[in-house]
Amino acid sequence: MSYNQSMTEEFMQLALKQAQTAFDEGEVPIGAVLVKDNQVIAADHNRKEQSGIATAHAEKLVIEGANCSLGDWRLNDCSLFVTIEPCVMCCGAIIQSRIPRLFYGAADPKFGGVSSLYHLLEDSRSNHFVEVYPDVLAKQSANLMQDFFRKLRKNQ
Amino acid sequence: MSYNQSMTEEFMQLALKQAQTAFDEGEVPIGAVLVKDNQVIAADHNRKEQSGIATAHAEKLVIEGANCSLGDWRLNDCSLFVTIEPCVMCCGAIIQSRIPRLFYGAADPKFGGVSSLYHLLEDSRSNHFVEVYPDVLAKQSANLMQDFFRKLRKNQ
Repeated sequence: MSYNQSMTEEFMQLALKQAQTAFDEGEVPIGAVLVKDNQVIAADHNRKEQSGIATAHAEKLVIEGANCSLGDWRLNDCSLFVTIEPCVMCCGAIIQSRIPRLFYGAADPKFGGVSSLYHLLEDSRSNHFVEVYPDVLAKQSANLMQDFFRKLRKNQ
Repeated sequence: MSYNQSMTEEFMQLALKQAQTAFDEGEVPIGAVLVKDNQVIAADHNRKEQSGIATAHAEKLVIEGANCSLGDWRLNDCSLFVTIEPCVMCCGAIIQSRIPRLFYGAADPKFGGVSSLYHLLEDSRSNHFVEVYPDVLAKQSANLMQDFFRKLRKNQ
């Protein structure tokens, strides 16, 4: 499955919409969608604070949602779109579910496991290779994060 | 919270019991327990195949179980006991939930994120430090894994 720029941005816009919902709910604004055959099969956003579950990141939630709807832990033909570079845990979840393509928005210098802290998806020792497309609508993702933390500091 | 050898082995025996249940269910035999104030607050085993969820590893399940029962994503006072060295995803879940102590059995040379492939829990750039105690009843954990894969190869 290949995507042209217009399709890629269309799916990332849906992930950004999820990130905006997270923002409105007082969660760190990160959103994700999982796509198979040009169809969105799962869309979600960070729910860590409201759920009280440490692992309730957007990426992990769409992976589990897709596993449930497809009835398979293998997401071989899927593409993951997420607004911010995935953390170590979510990189691991991408590997575990065998997702072959990742599109993300802005880098996460503090926690990112794809290109910032580590390069977990490009390890020649791994049994799974992931094509990575960074910087998709990165400015919008980064702006949403900056607005969120600015608001948080102001309220504290 | 500190543990003497007898207590450590007692909790690891409970994790091994969970691993045996996984074995009996045809799952890769890995078990985990989460302990707070000397009480087991969550115990579970790998459920990847039966659930069809890629992320259904023993460690991740006990972390989420403990989050639910405590009503908090922070597991600051807990210790995680797991029969096999955690993978990248589960190391990330340990960091996300701020678990301060990890006891594990056998190393996992192919997927381990603690001491085999990476040293994810000892990164000076991380905002969370984890005390790691490897090799707790390692022989029993390793034997169970070897028996499982031997049986799998025989049946194929």
